[in-house]
Amino acid sequence: MATPQVTSRILRRLLASGVTGRAERLLTRMAPADVALLLPVLTSDEIRVVIEMLFRQRRAALALRELPGEMLPQVFDALADEQLAAVIGRLEIDDLLEFVEWIPEDRREGVVDRLPEDKREELRNAELYPESSAGRVMTTSFIALDRKMSAQEAIDSLRSIGDGSEAVLYLYVVDEQRTLIGVVPIRRLVSSPPDRLISEIMIPDPVSVSADDDQEEVAHIVARFDLLAIPVTDVDGRMLGLITVDDVIDVITEEATEDMYHLAGLTEADRVFVSAHESIRKRLPWMFLNLGTCFAAAWVVGLFERTIEQVVALAIFMPVVAGMGGNGGTQALTIITRAIALGEIEFSSGFRAVLKELAVGLALGLAMGVASAGIAYLWQADPIIGVALFAAMILTLSVAGLVGAAVPLALKALHQDPALGAGVIVTTFTDAFAFFSFLGIATLLMDRAAG
Amino acid sequence: MATPQVTSRILRRLLASGVTGRAERLLTRMAPADVALLLPVLTSDEIRVVIEMLFRQRRAALALRELPGEMLPQVFDALADEQLAAVIGRLEIDDLLEFVEWIPEDRREGVVDRLPEDKREELRNAELYPESSAGRVMTTSFIALDRKMSAQEAIDSLRSIGDGSEAVLYLYVVDEQRTLIGVVPIRRLVSSPPDRLISEIMIPDPVSVSADDDQEEVAHIVARFDLLAIPVTDVDGRMLGLITVDDVIDVITEEATEDMYHLAGLTEADRVFVSAHESIRKRLPWMFLNLGTCFAAAWVVGLFERTIEQVVALAIFMPVVAGMGGNGGTQALTIITRAIALGEIEFSSGFRAVLKELAVGLALGLAMGVASAGIAYLWQADPIIGVALFAAMILTLSVAGLVGAAVPLALKALHQDPALGAGVIVTTFTDAFAFFSFLGIATLLMDRAAG
Repeated sequence: MATPQVTSRILRRLLASGVTGRAERLLTRMAPADVALLLPVLTSDEIRVVIEMLFRQRRAALALRELPGEMLPQVFDALADEQLAAVIGRLEIDDLLEFVEWIPEDRREGVVDRLPEDKREELRNAELYPESSAGRVMTTSFIALDRKMSAQEAIDSLRSIGDGSEAVLYLYVVDEQRTLIGVVPIRRLVSSPPDRLISEIMIPDPVSVSADDDQEEVAHIVARFDLLAIPVTDVDGRMLGLITVDDVIDVITEEATEDMYHLAGLTEADRVFVSAHESIRKRLPWMFLNLGTCFAAAWVVGLFERTIEQVVALAIFMPVVAGMGGNGGTQALTIITRAIALGEIEFSSGFRAVLKELAVGLALGLAMGVASAGIAYLWQADPIIGVALFAAMILTLSVAGLVGAAVPLALKALHQDPALGAGVIVTTFTDAFAFFSFLGIATLLMDRAAG
Repeated sequence: MATPQVTSRILRRLLASGVTGRAERLLTRMAPADVALLLPVLTSDEIRVVIEMLFRQRRAALALRELPGEMLPQVFDALADEQLAAVIGRLEIDDLLEFVEWIPEDRREGVVDRLPEDKREELRNAELYPESSAGRVMTTSFIALDRKMSAQEAIDSLRSIGDGSEAVLYLYVVDEQRTLIGVVPIRRLVSSPPDRLISEIMIPDPVSVSADDDQEEVAHIVARFDLLAIPVTDVDGRMLGLITVDDVIDVITEEATEDMYHLAGLTEADRVFVSAHESIRKRLPWMFLNLGTCFAAAWVVGLFERTIEQVVALAIFMPVVAGMGGNGGTQALTIITRAIALGEIEFSSGFRAVLKELAVGLALGLAMGVASAGIAYLWQADPIIGVALFAAMILTLSVAGLVGAAVPLALKALHQDPALGAGVIVTTFTDAFAFFSFLGIATLLMDRAAG
């Protein structure tokens, strides 16, 4: 298969020389994901033409769905409000909702006003649900059956609707109040004898979520029960819509990105393809925060300026204690953050997890303390440095395990994101503690030796 | 709903007092995932009884599938070879393959020998595929249709097979050589007029993967095309099996864990619920490696012992340069590692990504350089420290951006895991470079001031 680079060169040449027929046929043969790869390298004029061609093929929305959200504004810029509204008007409500958020604020109203009335209505309803809730990611088109239908009647009613709805993996059974009472996997419907009643083949009381539930929780449930879709209900159990597994994969992927980014002190929108200017703007606040914490560690070192003056070699070993402490803290932090995200913490408990990381830190501290004290003594032949390094390593790695495990659990208990800021808190604390213990113990030993 | 703690207490009391009937009914009402939460807290005897009850309900394998792999050996220990073989013999081949790997080596042969002959055969075949390949995660039971069937004939043949196979989301159309020629989504089959031919409703040339393809690649394709299952073929295009979306979710989740763990210098099996002893054993090699790199940084500081002797305050600001450099390097590293994992790097290019991170590092270095030099000058009133801090911050953050972006890309180009070891390489390098630039520039300035 040709690389996107080659394809885009061919496409641009075809467009430039006015051979639009061949350009359009080329587009027809490409998967939406590959078309998406093309868009960012095209000029505004080229984007406009390509989107028009795709729109005629009813594939414009499909291709745009394959773009990372951060790249949408660039494409939107090339399109007039009218054209943009026509393209996104073909999206399912969950995708539409996300797209509308990527339209620059000053254009948003203009575009939304040009959507078909029913889409505008749907959008208004969806926007009532809280951010990151199930209601925002659900699709509201689904097929509801009556429990008194036969299997064949259900199949016939599906035939009358025709193909196309992404919702037809499970059929949902509702009563007169539209309360969800059962689910029929389509594979079970098809395998059942034609005269069997829906009420006999349905699985009663299916797993469902509420529209206000958090998307991350929904993703956990779908992954745990190996579902392909999950129904969404209101507080009274009435069926509102459903969330399909492809949206769940997006949620899982986004959550993992969020955790990794938060551990490193990054904001989600700071992706590889956003401009340097944008990345700088997003990283500056975190950098200033980090600078503050680095100066806090420096202040701790400053407390012991007199000690370092007497034994300058202490400065050499400062990076060893701090580096090992930071490493130990990050390890504990990563394990607990991931365990929270995957629900693995349920197989242990917060308290046991903290105790375990403390014990692991203590044991690793002992091993590293012996090794580093040995190397330091061979290098500098100063017993005070060796003893201070040994003791500081044990203390620092124990504290690193304790703090690395406790901080994300504490953040979670306070209903905060367990990863957000945890990296900065843990490494600052371990750095400061490493310097304090190492230089503090050295000071005590020197005072005693002098006294 | 009762918490797992409460349920396990009730269950144990029922088992202890011999009221097994009620215990069994309690188990019947629990979801497999909740049963899985119970198992680790039970004694060996209790596990044996519970597994027996679940086995009678044909749910033992389902419950075990919900356990993280690392917890399986504990459950396996409680079961005799005979019982274990009976339980895992009911698994689909992809799950069976994974379970067999968790059986302690000295028991593995004994258990496998007790599996039914057809499962043993399937297992031998699956084990021929490379580690982490599609062949290892595919299920080999699927429904193949002939293109000359009508929609109604296809439905009738499904009815004759009955319900139960997880494979029935898509029906695959093969020719006489079993070559995959098309796919019919079951929802499309059901919505089609009964007399329509399969060849008319099938989607020709469906997306497929080869059995030797890497699982991560397969997951990307499934996520990208929003598929529910993907067919797996041999080199000649003959259909071998299929991979379902629930397995893809597992692959995506595992890959994210792997990346996060590798960035922190952890091995995958080091989970929150493994014993402290196990965690220590797994982390020790990484810790020793990290100790080596910390001493490398210490050695760089040692080169400037004379300089620090003259201006002890330099030791105070060492953590500031090193801390900021480590932070900047980790940020670039995280962005590039995640971009590689998500395929987002395709929207940019390796070269552009490195250049961008270099530019971002330079800009952030300028801002942090001005801020830190200002604070340092106000604190210590020493222009040499201020200038050295300013220059070192710019150099270190630029290098951090460069190295943080280049290392994972280089590892990938060498066909290595982009995250493995990258964290250690990047932070060691930035630490050493931070000390070298800060203390080196200070030495030069002092020499010039003295000269």
